[in-house]
Amino acid sequence: MKIVKVNDLISIKRSIESGTTEQLAVVKNIISDIRSSGDNALRDYTEKFDRVKLDSFLVTESEINEAYRKVDSEFISIVREAAENIKSFHEKQLRPSWMTTEENGSILGQKITPLDSVGVYVPGGTAAYPSSVLMNVIPAKVAGVKRIVMVSPPDSEGILPAAVLVAAKEAGVEEIYKVGGAQAIGALAYGTESIKPVDKITGPGNIFVALAKREVFGDVDIDMIAGPSEIAIIADDTARPDEIAADLLSQAEHDPRACSVLVTPSMKLAEEVAGEVEKQLAILPRKDIASRSIEDFGVIYVTSSIEEAVETVNQLAPEHLEILTENGIELLGKIRHAGAIFIGRYSSEPVGDYFAGPNHVLPTNGTARFSSPLNVDDFQKKSSVIIYSEKALKDNGEKIAKFARMEGLEAHARAVELRLENR
Amino acid sequence: MKIVKVNDLISIKRSIESGTTEQLAVVKNIISDIRSSGDNALRDYTEKFDRVKLDSFLVTESEINEAYRKVDSEFISIVREAAENIKSFHEKQLRPSWMTTEENGSILGQKITPLDSVGVYVPGGTAAYPSSVLMNVIPAKVAGVKRIVMVSPPDSEGILPAAVLVAAKEAGVEEIYKVGGAQAIGALAYGTESIKPVDKITGPGNIFVALAKREVFGDVDIDMIAGPSEIAIIADDTARPDEIAADLLSQAEHDPRACSVLVTPSMKLAEEVAGEVEKQLAILPRKDIASRSIEDFGVIYVTSSIEEAVETVNQLAPEHLEILTENGIELLGKIRHAGAIFIGRYSSEPVGDYFAGPNHVLPTNGTARFSSPLNVDDFQKKSSVIIYSEKALKDNGEKIAKFARMEGLEAHARAVELRLENR
Repeated sequence: MKIVKVNDLISIKRSIESGTTEQLAVVKNIISDIRSSGDNALRDYTEKFDRVKLDSFLVTESEINEAYRKVDSEFISIVREAAENIKSFHEKQLRPSWMTTEENGSILGQKITPLDSVGVYVPGGTAAYPSSVLMNVIPAKVAGVKRIVMVSPPDSEGILPAAVLVAAKEAGVEEIYKVGGAQAIGALAYGTESIKPVDKITGPGNIFVALAKREVFGDVDIDMIAGPSEIAIIADDTARPDEIAADLLSQAEHDPRACSVLVTPSMKLAEEVAGEVEKQLAILPRKDIASRSIEDFGVIYVTSSIEEAVETVNQLAPEHLEILTENGIELLGKIRHAGAIFIGRYSSEPVGDYFAGPNHVLPTNGTARFSSPLNVDDFQKKSSVIIYSEKALKDNGEKIAKFARMEGLEAHARAVELRLENR
Repeated sequence: MKIVKVNDLISIKRSIESGTTEQLAVVKNIISDIRSSGDNALRDYTEKFDRVKLDSFLVTESEINEAYRKVDSEFISIVREAAENIKSFHEKQLRPSWMTTEENGSILGQKITPLDSVGVYVPGGTAAYPSSVLMNVIPAKVAGVKRIVMVSPPDSEGILPAAVLVAAKEAGVEEIYKVGGAQAIGALAYGTESIKPVDKITGPGNIFVALAKREVFGDVDIDMIAGPSEIAIIADDTARPDEIAADLLSQAEHDPRACSVLVTPSMKLAEEVAGEVEKQLAILPRKDIASRSIEDFGVIYVTSSIEEAVETVNQLAPEHLEILTENGIELLGKIRHAGAIFIGRYSSEPVGDYFAGPNHVLPTNGTARFSSPLNVDDFQKKSSVIIYSEKALKDNGEKIAKFARMEGLEAHARAVELRLENR
C-alpha cells in the first residue's frame, strides 16, 4: 500500500460508469415495451434475460415459507435483531407536522406525509444482500409508506434467494415480484397489469438498472446512483495496525474500484499498517478483488498533525470514516463531510454494515459534501400550510400587491386586492 | 374555461423541455471551456451572450449602494419584512444533531452539518424576480451555509437589476457575480480564477441553464428542474367566484403552459367561475399569456362530492392548492399530495409567493407525490455517528461476523473477530 505525503492529496472520486449509447438504447427500448405491452413484455424479457418462463411474478406465501425452511434459524434471529436495531434508529428520525400560530390569527406550518408507495430493487446473484433489503425497506416502513414493493431477478428455476426473501418478510414487505433489470424498473415506474406503479424506486443494481432509474427519474423519484464504496481512517499511534489493516481490507474486498485510505501523522503507523495489509491480504478468500482495490485506490497519507489529517478527510468527504485516535470523540465536531463516522476501536465498519442501526446506504464519491445516508426523510415529503387571517391580509395585503406589481405580475396584485375590497 | 366531469380527469403533467441535441452540445462545450480556460472563457462568453466586456465579475459595494438609491424606500421595507417572515418560518425547520445512548455503553446518532457553500442562479431580464432571491438564499442562510454566492447575467451596460441586488443584500448574500447562462453554472461547479466552486446550485433558469445544471449534477448537488407552475382549488358554494377566478388567473399569467384547475361539487359555482375568468381576463395586462394558459391547461372539474374533489386533488398532486370550502381546515388531513396548501379566502396564493414565510419554490408537475418545497434540509446533510462500546462488540460481534460470512464477505467478518481476539 503506497505511503505518500498529504500535499499529494488525490481526490477519491472515481468516474461512475455512465453506460454506452448502445446500453442506453437497449434500456429505452425495454422501458417503452413495458409501457406499451405490460406483463407480456415483462414475461418476454424475464424469459430472455433470466431464462425462466413465469406465469405469475408475485412471490407466494408458500415460497416465503419455503425460504424460511432453507435458512438456518440462527440467521433468522440475527436478521430479526438487526431489523429491530435499524427500526429503532430510524424511528428517532421521525418528525411531526408542525404549526406556528400568529397573534393576528394566521397559522403557518409544515405537514409531513409519507410517500404512498415505494419500490425496492434487489440485485440478483452474489450481489443479493439481505442486509441491503433491511436497509432500504425499514426506513420506508418507519416513514409510514403503506405500500412497499420489492423486485429482484429470479434464477433459472424462477426462485429468489432464501435469505433475501426472509429479510424482506422480516422487514415487512408484503409484495415481492420476481422481475429484474430495466424491465423491473419500467414496471415499477409505469405499472403493468400485475404490478401497480410506485412513487419512488431505491436500491442498487447493475448498469442497466442504473440507466433505467435515470430514465424514469422525474416520473418517479429515485435514490442516488451509488459509486464504488470507500473508507477513510484517521489514526494515531494509539491505534492497532492489525485492526486498521483489517478495516481497510473489509472495504477493499467489495470491489476492485473500492477505495481505502489511511490518514495519520505517524510514519511508524503508516509503515506498520502497510505491512499488515500485505500480510492479511495474502490469506483472504476475495484476495484478487481486494488486492486490485488496494493497489489502484489504496493510499496512506502521512500528515504533519491530527488537525491536518482531519482537514484531509474533509476534503475527501468519504463514505465511511473511522476515527482511531486518543480522544477520538473530540474530533467529531471538526468533521464536516462523511457519510458515517465510526469512533473508537470497537466501531469497526462492518458493525454499521449489518447491525448497529444506522443505514449502510451512504453517499459515495465525495458526495458526502452535500448528501446524507438513506433515512426516513427520503420516504416522506413536506407540504407548506398557510392559513392567513382576515387581519393578516388587511395588514399586509397592500404590501403584497406592491411586491407583485414590482415583478410585473398584475393578476397576483388583483387577487389580493379583491379580498380587501370584498371584505 | 372548460367544465368537465371528473371521470375525464387528465393529468396536469406537461412535458418538461429537455433541450435539443444541439443545445446540449453547446452546453457541454461551454462547460468544458470554463473548466479549461476559467475566467478567460467566462469573459468571452459574457461578451458573446450578454454583449458586455467585463474586467471583473464581482459586484462591488458601490454598485450595491447605487442599487439602493434606485429602488424606492417602501419597496426596501417590504423586502425587509418579507425576508424577516421567510427567515422566521425557515428557522422553525432547523433540527439539532441528536444521539441515543445505550445501556451497553454505545452511542448512536446523527450529526447535522450545513453545506459549506451554495450558488444561487437568478435569471436575467423580466424573469429577475427579487422574491426568488429571498426564497433561495434565506433557507441556505438559516441552514448555516457559510458561503452563499449569487450569479446573474448582466445587461449590456454590465449592470444587474437594482431590485435583485437589494433583495440579495437583504437576504445576506456577500458574493455576487455578473455572469449568467451555462457559463455561470460551469464556473459555480468547477471554479475559475475569480469564482471558487460551490457544493450545490439552486435557482431557476432558461433551457441552457437547466441543461448545464443537469450536466454538472453529481459533481455538485442541484435543486429540481422545475416545470411550469400550477394551482388547484377545491371550492364549494360558500366560496366567491370572483376570488376563485382571480386566483386561477394569478397562476395563468405566469406562463402559457401554467395550469389552473378548479375542482368543485357545485355546477353552479363552476359556471360562475368560468364567467368570472372571462370577465377578469379581458382586462389583464398579461392577457395574452393568461388566456393561452387557461385555454390549453385550464379546467373545471365537477365532482359528486367534496370527498371526490379531495381524491381528485390527490391524484393531480398540484404545486399550489387552495381550499375554499366550509370548514376547509377539516380537509387538511385528507390531502396527501400538494406543494403548498392555502386554506380560507384570505390565503390567496400570492400571499405565499411573496410574504407569509413558507417557500415559493415548490414541486411542480405532479412531483408533490414525492418532493417538498425548498427548505432548510436542502442545505444541510446528515452523517451517521457510531460509537460502539467494548461490551456491545462482545455481545454482538459473532452475530455480525456470521451475517458478513452469510453474504460472502470474509474480510468484514475478520475485522470484527480481530477485535474480539485482541481484547
